[in-house]
Amino acid sequence: MRTVIECVPNISEGRDAARVEEIAAAVRAVPAAHLLGVSSDASHNRSVLTLVGDAAGVAAAVRALFAAALSRIDLTRHAGEHPRMGAVDVVPFIPIRGATVEQCVALSREVGAEIAERFGVPVYLYEDSATSERRRNLAEIRKGEFEGLAEKMRLPEWKPDFGPDRPHPTGGVVAVGARAPLIAYNINLGTRDVAVADRIAKAIRHIGGGFRYVKAMGVELADRGLVQVSINMTNYKKTPLHRVFECVRSEAERHGVAVVGSEIVGLTPAEALFAAAEHYLRLENFAPEQALEMKLLELGE
Amino acid sequence: MRTVIECVPNISEGRDAARVEEIAAAVRAVPAAHLLGVSSDASHNRSVLTLVGDAAGVAAAVRALFAAALSRIDLTRHAGEHPRMGAVDVVPFIPIRGATVEQCVALSREVGAEIAERFGVPVYLYEDSATSERRRNLAEIRKGEFEGLAEKMRLPEWKPDFGPDRPHPTGGVVAVGARAPLIAYNINLGTRDVAVADRIAKAIRHIGGGFRYVKAMGVELADRGLVQVSINMTNYKKTPLHRVFECVRSEAERHGVAVVGSEIVGLTPAEALFAAAEHYLRLENFAPEQALEMKLLELGE
Repeated sequence: MRTVIECVPNISEGRDAARVEEIAAAVRAVPAAHLLGVSSDASHNRSVLTLVGDAAGVAAAVRALFAAALSRIDLTRHAGEHPRMGAVDVVPFIPIRGATVEQCVALSREVGAEIAERFGVPVYLYEDSATSERRRNLAEIRKGEFEGLAEKMRLPEWKPDFGPDRPHPTGGVVAVGARAPLIAYNINLGTRDVAVADRIAKAIRHIGGGFRYVKAMGVELADRGLVQVSINMTNYKKTPLHRVFECVRSEAERHGVAVVGSEIVGLTPAEALFAAAEHYLRLENFAPEQALEMKLLELGE
Repeated sequence: MRTVIECVPNISEGRDAARVEEIAAAVRAVPAAHLLGVSSDASHNRSVLTLVGDAAGVAAAVRALFAAALSRIDLTRHAGEHPRMGAVDVVPFIPIRGATVEQCVALSREVGAEIAERFGVPVYLYEDSATSERRRNLAEIRKGEFEGLAEKMRLPEWKPDFGPDRPHPTGGVVAVGARAPLIAYNINLGTRDVAVADRIAKAIRHIGGGFRYVKAMGVELADRGLVQVSINMTNYKKTPLHRVFECVRSEAERHGVAVVGSEIVGLTPAEALFAAAEHYLRLENFAPEQALEMKLLELGE
C-alpha cells in the first residue's frame, strides 16, 4: 500500500454491540480498506472505527459506513454523555504515508459532496477542510447538537457546505474533514499531587502559552498513586513527542517530581517514534525508508 | 506480508555491471520475494543483494540466484580483494518479523540441502545454523579460499554439511546460515584524534570486554575533521543502539570529546528504532503494533 490514509469515523451507537458489529461488518466488506479496530463507549453511546486504505479505499469504506449506519441509528431516540449531531457524527481523513493534508482536504470535499448527494445528509467541512475559520472547530459546529440543528441551520452562517439546509430526520448532520494524525500521549509523574500535573499541563498546552500542537490536562491515577499529564498531540511533525517529554521532565523537576513513565494510547505513525530515536541518538541523514518495514510498505506489500 | 525474512546473499562478481544485473533480474523475477537493493564493489569484485520475503519466497529467490550465478561466475578466473570461496559465497537468512532464528535455521538447512542436491555445490552451515562451534565463524570456513578448497575438503573436519566432498569446479562452495539482523551503526566524535575513537571502540566491543553483540573500530573522517566509532551491532535486541550510544557518549566525555552525531548505514528493523524511542521516552506497555505501519504489514498489506 503506497498511499496510506487513516479514517476514524465516530458513530452514535455504543450500547447495542450487535448493531455496532453489523455496521463494522459493512465496512470490513470493502476490499480496498482495512478496519483496524472498533472501540465502543456505552456511557457516551458512541463508537470509534479506525480504518486505513488509499483514497479510493477509505472513500468506499465511508460510503458503506453511511449506508449501514443511517438504516440502523435513529438520533431521535439517542441519548448519551458525549455531544453528537449525526448518526455518523464525524469523519476525519488523516494522511499517514504518501499523502498530504491537501490531498486529504480534496478527498474530504469529494466524499462530503457524495454523501450529501447520495444520502441527503447535510455535510459541514471542518478542521483543515473548513470553509470558514469558525467551522474549523468541531465543537462550534456541534453546538446545539441534534435537537438544535433545525433551528441553527436556518442561520445563513450555518448553511452546510453540501446537502440540504435541514438535518436528515434520523441521521442529523455530519462533519467531514482532513486533519493531521493525533497521538494520545500521557506522561506519568511520581507524585499524588494532581496540582503538579495541572500546572504542567497548563504550561505545555497551546492555550496556556505552551506548544502550538498540544492539548493537555492533569489527571489523577489513584490506583497507581500517581498523577498524569494527559496530552493530545495534534501535529507530531511540528510539535514532536520528545520535545514535549523533555519540557514536562524539566517542569516536573522544578517541582521535585520525577517522570516515572509515559504511554502512547492506541495507534501512532511509526515516524513519530523514529523522530524520537533520531533526536536522542543524534542520527544524521536518517530516512524512514531505512526501516525495512517502511520499505516493504512502500513496495506495495 | 505476515512473515518477513531478510536474505543478504553475497556473490563473487562486482565489476561486470551487466552480469550483476542479469543475476539480479533472475532474483527480481521471483514473485514471492522482493529485491530491495544490489550493491557492488569493484575492488572486492563482489556484490551484495538484499531481498525479503516469507520462507518460501526467499527460498525460491535463492534457487533462482544460484541458477543465474553459477552459469555466469567462474571462480577459476576470479580475482578481488575480498576473501571468497564460492560464486554465491554466503547466504544468510535473517528473521525480521513473524519468524524466529530457529525457523531461519530450519530454512537454511532445507535450502542448503536443496542447493547441494540441485546444483552440486557443497554447503557449509554457518552462524546459528553451524553443526560445530568452528563452523559458526565464516572466516574459518573461508580460510584457504577457492584455491585451497580441494585440499581442505579432504580433511574429515571440513566435510561439508550437504553435497559432494569436492568443490564445484567453477562455483566453489557456499556458506548458508541463520543470523540475527545486523545494524551498521557509526558514532561521530568531535575530535581529529583517531586514538580516542580507537580507545572507545576497544572499550565497547565484545573482544575488549565490552558489549556481547558489538564489533567496533576507530576510523578517521578526514574530510569532516572528525573521527568515528564504526560499529557492527550483531544483535540489537540483546545489545540495543541506545545502550551503546550512551556508553560511547560517557567514554567520549571522559576524553573531553563530544558526540556530534550518529548514523545508521543501510537498513534496520523498525523495532531497533522503536526500542530507542521506548527507552528515552520511558514508554510503558509499548507494542510495535501500535505503529500503524506495523499493523498494516501484519494485516498482510
